[in-house]
Amino acid sequence: MVNAEWQKLIQEKRAARDAGIPQEWRLPTSILSKVAEDSQISAFDLLDEAAVLTRLEREITEIASAQELVSKISSRELSSYDVCLAFCKRAAVAHQLTNSLTEIFFDKALRRARWLDEYQTREGKTIGPLHGLPITLKDMINVKGEFATMGFVSHLKHEPATENSVIVDILDAAGAVFYCKTNVPQTLFVSESYNNVFGLTLNPHRLCLSPGGSSSGEAAQIALRGSIMGIGSDIAGSVRVPALCVGAYGFKPTTNRIPWSKQAELIQKGWNGIFPTLGPLTHTPQDLNLFMKTVIQAQPWRHDHTAHSIPWQEVARKQKLTIGVWLEDPGFPVFPTQRRIMRDAVQKLRIAGHDNLAHKFLADAGEAPMPSLAHMNPADYLDEDFVADLDEALSVSAASLDYQEAWAQVWQNNKLDVVLSPACRGTAARHGEFGPLFYSIPWNLLDVNSCSPRTLPVVIHADSLMTVPRERYSLCIIDGAPAGLQVIGWRFQDEHVLMATEVIADALNR
Amino acid sequence: MVNAEWQKLIQEKRAARDAGIPQEWRLPTSILSKVAEDSQISAFDLLDEAAVLTRLEREITEIASAQELVSKISSRELSSYDVCLAFCKRAAVAHQLTNSLTEIFFDKALRRARWLDEYQTREGKTIGPLHGLPITLKDMINVKGEFATMGFVSHLKHEPATENSVIVDILDAAGAVFYCKTNVPQTLFVSESYNNVFGLTLNPHRLCLSPGGSSSGEAAQIALRGSIMGIGSDIAGSVRVPALCVGAYGFKPTTNRIPWSKQAELIQKGWNGIFPTLGPLTHTPQDLNLFMKTVIQAQPWRHDHTAHSIPWQEVARKQKLTIGVWLEDPGFPVFPTQRRIMRDAVQKLRIAGHDNLAHKFLADAGEAPMPSLAHMNPADYLDEDFVADLDEALSVSAASLDYQEAWAQVWQNNKLDVVLSPACRGTAARHGEFGPLFYSIPWNLLDVNSCSPRTLPVVIHADSLMTVPRERYSLCIIDGAPAGLQVIGWRFQDEHVLMATEVIADALNR
Repeated sequence: MVNAEWQKLIQEKRAARDAGIPQEWRLPTSILSKVAEDSQISAFDLLDEAAVLTRLEREITEIASAQELVSKISSRELSSYDVCLAFCKRAAVAHQLTNSLTEIFFDKALRRARWLDEYQTREGKTIGPLHGLPITLKDMINVKGEFATMGFVSHLKHEPATENSVIVDILDAAGAVFYCKTNVPQTLFVSESYNNVFGLTLNPHRLCLSPGGSSSGEAAQIALRGSIMGIGSDIAGSVRVPALCVGAYGFKPTTNRIPWSKQAELIQKGWNGIFPTLGPLTHTPQDLNLFMKTVIQAQPWRHDHTAHSIPWQEVARKQKLTIGVWLEDPGFPVFPTQRRIMRDAVQKLRIAGHDNLAHKFLADAGEAPMPSLAHMNPADYLDEDFVADLDEALSVSAASLDYQEAWAQVWQNNKLDVVLSPACRGTAARHGEFGPLFYSIPWNLLDVNSCSPRTLPVVIHADSLMTVPRERYSLCIIDGAPAGLQVIGWRFQDEHVLMATEVIADALNR
Repeated sequence: MVNAEWQKLIQEKRAARDAGIPQEWRLPTSILSKVAEDSQISAFDLLDEAAVLTRLEREITEIASAQELVSKISSRELSSYDVCLAFCKRAAVAHQLTNSLTEIFFDKALRRARWLDEYQTREGKTIGPLHGLPITLKDMINVKGEFATMGFVSHLKHEPATENSVIVDILDAAGAVFYCKTNVPQTLFVSESYNNVFGLTLNPHRLCLSPGGSSSGEAAQIALRGSIMGIGSDIAGSVRVPALCVGAYGFKPTTNRIPWSKQAELIQKGWNGIFPTLGPLTHTPQDLNLFMKTVIQAQPWRHDHTAHSIPWQEVARKQKLTIGVWLEDPGFPVFPTQRRIMRDAVQKLRIAGHDNLAHKFLADAGEAPMPSLAHMNPADYLDEDFVADLDEALSVSAASLDYQEAWAQVWQNNKLDVVLSPACRGTAARHGEFGPLFYSIPWNLLDVNSCSPRTLPVVIHADSLMTVPRERYSLCIIDGAPAGLQVIGWRFQDEHVLMATEVIADALNR
């Protein structure tokens, strides 16, 4: 708990944030009273019921992809201002239904959109490939003049950012419009969505479900289409898990392909373990590609010493993929829901002609979990006098090289394009019940890239599953809980895995 | 000193090695008696005097570049066998003049060359881009059936390698012919050329000079044209320094672009500090390119999990380069010879039209040496109870990130193509007198790529310099001692720095 002085600061912070929402965009008490963290109600239903958005605003915010949206702005079918206004309004509504925003700066966004329209009129062209595209940002990404509280009560006394994160400068130059920042869980190291400053973010599909984390607010906003492209970060699954929890696309690139510098940092400088990376959440695989291509073609290494100087590569679409399938780890078995999703996916991919499918249990070489993965909760380390020495650090590092080598051999021997694996044990779970990130963190450890694509809607027949006597499983059984899988590529082959994700998504959603 | 049992093993090892040299290739005592580590005599003169090679063998081994050589084999102007025989013979002679080989397997090489000729006749084509090219290997690189003693007396009881290093497999598939391995200094961590097993390797230009290290034998063989392409390794200058000490081209790529796996390792697995990389020594910058392109186009990441999956990029030749010049570090000033080399180079580059030349002291941001660099000799750590803890390791790691950031800003703010810097303090030095690797190791720390190109012959007027009262400087003043400079590119831009090196070499050698 936090003391009275801090409680006051927290109340002020929430009030300051909500003051950014115009009175006429506020939902009536009749709707707000239904928003509860233990309710099975869907925020999509509440959005329909609220009817705050005009028909045009709904049409704009429900355009299928960011690609299509920027194309409509570029052709002047839509103005940047109208697009911005629609997304600000929808983000405000989505926030009231899911508690997903931390900073709101709609005024600034609308001025920027107006300026972009003027630029386009004056110059007869757009300013860049993302001209007029509204983009949401996870709270740790700095925007000059805005706070980066990240849910830490202690940060409520910090000053606003004095400069942009490098990614913000690059997207800004490409024409993006920033309008709000999104909520994260305490410490950002769990796949939950609660912190003491902003509280709990809810999953639009069922309010009693968590949107996952740590890019929790991004996921909620993307799902409710308060956002069409969001930037999260991922060190253990923090982009991919929220994406799967809301049925969106999430991509964790190879580290350092997307510039990391000038964020509100959480990691000790000089840290030599698993590194985080920024990554996009979108509605289509093509939009993941749009983000990656735009950022890398801007040559981030000219602005950020941590960004790898590796140019963007165009990759031709492959008609027939060689896909390795990792069904599950026997030491951490998946729930029946997830097993059914994987089985259906394999069948669909086979029907789609990917008959080189290496449909076998690929983890022979790589299944052993790292000892450290057995204790993922950082709190485990708080109680004891935990001092690692250099030899221990080297031996962990050596073990991770063995793990990398074992997986590399699976990759090499089977000439794989990608591996298909569960993205988590089951589906989106009730708040606080997601559990360890066993199926997402191996890919961070290997520093390969990994994509969690939207799958077909999952319908769970709770009754038929409730009989399975697995610990904690019953907590996750909620009809309509989204679930997902992962497409994993090899290190630095981000372009290749994005191509494969498009091909796989086409097959799964056929 | 080593005891009698070991002394016997050392004698047996040297005898076994030298047994690989046919009797008719052995030099007469009249020549061998002139080979002495304190002699100012040149091995080039002794080679002429010995006259062991036929005119054709001299012509073959003095072909300007590996590129030209493979082209002559490809067009059947030369057979792989004749080329192999000529290089075996010349390497044998060069070894007798400089003591540069550790393993000799000419028979195996000649069988391989014969097989390549048969292949070419049968198939009507070459097997790969290096068909018939003889390549020398630093001792730590494993060739199945051969030893990797690396000058350690304790390794004399080791078994021969049971498999090839990955680089050997890749070059083999490209058509290369391996015929010998080359000497290294004790521990490989200094730029000298002595160990207790094989003894001292001499610099062909003046026998009293060191060929540098740790790729000592490679340098001696390249200089005397016992080799036309050699593979060394570099963690602090071990390719570049020997290259400059003999007037060859040496290239340290960005780490992990060239596959590292399956070598006789010296570094603790899991080590997270500066990493070594393999790199080529050649007679032309185009040959550096030939090596890099051949290896990377073979997709080493399909065979070695440590190799980065970054494809080869063709880079167009730039007519006008922006070159940053780092003249010297005031804390570690260069000798007048090196200063003159840098001044001449800058002038020539300006004449050649590179007028964007950022001719200024660029180290403003990056000049502070890392504290650890002040104590480069590993022996410094042997006497004390040196235990590093994890916090210390992280703080060193954090300091190196600061250093990287400072240099990145120099690069970014000046929009540099490359930086030109000294490759060492002066010239090739007398045995045991090279000193710290201050001008080569910063680029390993930054993990950028760095090339030491051959410069114009340096003629040192010893008398005019002897007056400079600098510690240890007089020891280096030898007329005809080679010297060099460095062309440094940014991380992962290996293709770009190789292009720039060609452009710069053209300007310097005009």
